[in-house]
Amino acid sequence: MIPRLYVTVDLKPGTRFAAEERAAHYLKNVMRRTPGDPLILFNTRDGEFNATIADVSKKSVEIEVTDLRRPQSSVPDVWLCFAPLKKDAVDFLVEKATELGVAAFQPVFTKHTASTRLNLERLEANAIEAAEQTERLTLPQIRAPLSLAELIQGWDPTRRIILCAEAGPVLPIGEALSGLKQDVRQTNAWGILCGPEGGFARSELDLLSKLPFVTPVGLGPRILRADTAALAALAVFQSILGDGAERPPAPLLPIGQSPA
Amino acid sequence: MIPRLYVTVDLKPGTRFAAEERAAHYLKNVMRRTPGDPLILFNTRDGEFNATIADVSKKSVEIEVTDLRRPQSSVPDVWLCFAPLKKDAVDFLVEKATELGVAAFQPVFTKHTASTRLNLERLEANAIEAAEQTERLTLPQIRAPLSLAELIQGWDPTRRIILCAEAGPVLPIGEALSGLKQDVRQTNAWGILCGPEGGFARSELDLLSKLPFVTPVGLGPRILRADTAALAALAVFQSILGDGAERPPAPLLPIGQSPA
Repeated sequence: MIPRLYVTVDLKPGTRFAAEERAAHYLKNVMRRTPGDPLILFNTRDGEFNATIADVSKKSVEIEVTDLRRPQSSVPDVWLCFAPLKKDAVDFLVEKATELGVAAFQPVFTKHTASTRLNLERLEANAIEAAEQTERLTLPQIRAPLSLAELIQGWDPTRRIILCAEAGPVLPIGEALSGLKQDVRQTNAWGILCGPEGGFARSELDLLSKLPFVTPVGLGPRILRADTAALAALAVFQSILGDGAERPPAPLLPIGQSPA
Repeated sequence: MIPRLYVTVDLKPGTRFAAEERAAHYLKNVMRRTPGDPLILFNTRDGEFNATIADVSKKSVEIEVTDLRRPQSSVPDVWLCFAPLKKDAVDFLVEKATELGVAAFQPVFTKHTASTRLNLERLEANAIEAAEQTERLTLPQIRAPLSLAELIQGWDPTRRIILCAEAGPVLPIGEALSGLKQDVRQTNAWGILCGPEGGFARSELDLLSKLPFVTPVGLGPRILRADTAALAALAVFQSILGDGAERPPAPLLPIGQSPA
């Protein structure tokens, strides 16, 4: 298994640099790599590169960039607006949503949100690790938490909100998103908004449902936990409006296999 | 919060019975319920019932069934055929797939399956807990593990396999499932087949792709972990071919809220 790492330095063939502390620790102590071993790098700007370990010393790990593997690419512009959950559920949500190609995480505090604390550094570390695993060339943006009122007040109305909250009879998500796909006035900026474990308050749903840029959708007859609802909505989004709807340009590898 | 419990006894108004050990412990020691407190019961056969705690003693918890809340209903006939993963990933997969309305879990050992052990009792306990939470009236069936060869040999060819493994250019899952939905010859029995972390072996994919009851589908441009792939496929399945595609009969509650 060839390690794949996010780095912050500029990447181009011939660049040599000392790995940052996290990467150095991982390569030296966790993976026990030695000079000459290959690795893969991305920095969210320059594409994905092959590299080799040039030197390992007590103090540092030197890396040399060799050649471009893939040009830079992005993910669909879909934000996940979620109410902070228990630590394990947030960890899980960040990992899975990063794999499913979310562009940004927007924490939202609603009336029934039980968790008042959110460790943004932990959230970012989990997102980086998932992006490394899932062969993304970008990291999801971690946005500063907002109250629901602040979120709505500052919201760009050209970014459509897909509201996962069944207040009254709403269209099933598949039907609703297929309808949006046909709408030529539609821009390509999206937000998926999910409530906390306790659900949205009735007043919140009433407020949201009246906004012209909100499309409420139904996720089926079962009661889903908040994290499950968010991921189901994101998976369906990618399969209809996102890059999961695109036919692959060339033969692809089996799921779970790395191109290396 | 009114506890919702799976029980094995027959349920009808007026039935009185001693709770099984797991339920008794939960009601008495975890939830600290006392006589007169309400609860909700289902047994996968008779529907969902209101009940009350009739008596709590050192040795037992007596429950009395009052009235029917909802008639029995089922989930779409979709099996999740998955290669055993690490314990945490299996726990997570079972919880989320149960919420997403899977009818059965079918463990499959493939060439690259790293985990050789699978605790079926733990799997069942997790499925019961998730079914209690998600307001299902059924439990997913837990099927005995098979090798991939055994699975194929014994497979009912009228149950179509949706293969989550991109061997060569395959249709995106949304397009593939929408196509199957139009096919009037199609039965309503399904299996979603996902590989292990290492992916399927080339020989396995070649074998599977030749079977007339297998539809390979693509899950988008990113590399998904095995559990993420399974859940994304199941979510998209429910939104197109499953009960997530049905318009709700009446106003529904917000996600995460219980009707109680």
